[in-house]
Amino acid sequence: MSDPSEKVLENATPDVAKGDGPLPAIAQDAATGTILMMAYMNAESYAETLETGRAVYFSRSRSKLWRKGEESGNVQEVESIFLDCDLDTILLKVKQIGDAACHVGYQSCFFRQVTPEGLKVVGERVFDPDEVYGKK
Amino acid sequence: MSDPSEKVLENATPDVAKGDGPLPAIAQDAATGTILMMAYMNAESYAETLETGRAVYFSRSRSKLWRKGEESGNVQEVESIFLDCDLDTILLKVKQIGDAACHVGYQSCFFRQVTPEGLKVVGERVFDPDEVYGKK
Repeated sequence: MSDPSEKVLENATPDVAKGDGPLPAIAQDAATGTILMMAYMNAESYAETLETGRAVYFSRSRSKLWRKGEESGNVQEVESIFLDCDLDTILLKVKQIGDAACHVGYQSCFFRQVTPEGLKVVGERVFDPDEVYGKK
Repeated sequence: MSDPSEKVLENATPDVAKGDGPLPAIAQDAATGTILMMAYMNAESYAETLETGRAVYFSRSRSKLWRKGEESGNVQEVESIFLDCDLDTILLKVKQIGDAACHVGYQSCFFRQVTPEGLKVVGERVFDPDEVYGKK
């Protein structure tokens, strides 16, 4: 059986390390498999993630590094990192400190389900964002 | 406790339905929690996914709908759909027919782990792509 993965195995880094645009990075709870959030990484944030063992993203709207949990304390300790077949999506398996990844206080950013009646909240609030970030 | 989700709850659709660019869509195995792949959806593919109950993506490189499994038979039956806090990422929980989502024959596209020694294949091949798609 030919193995198409052999060719790509020669590339030990995601495309982001070649200076391409920010790549999607999915954060999954390493223990439960829950998908916590999706954000973006550029070369600098990917390198800092590897170096520190904590998830560092790149905020496209603010054009700067986003050290996840810097303000809330809800950092993500990275247990393992995977790349997809095209080397253009990153998967982080993390330990989510504080039990909540989402800035509006839910464990997962995907706390709403699409139903025939519209969106339905299925996640439980873990914290009150007003208390964590202060009223803005 | 104020609920910032109330405001966004009024929007029953992801941004993609408003005609914005294709949005990332994560496919997760509904039974095991394994993240199978990440692709993109535009308004048309999202609508067809809702209508047919099968994952339909939008191929950005080919600029056309990509009915997952059309060629390989490895369709994804959608069990539930979730939207993230910003309404710009879609999560599909699916039943993956054929046990493999990745076109190179692995169950998950994330079959390679980043290690200090480079990328390491951690997934198992489920099928030989030459047999499924024919040699190209």
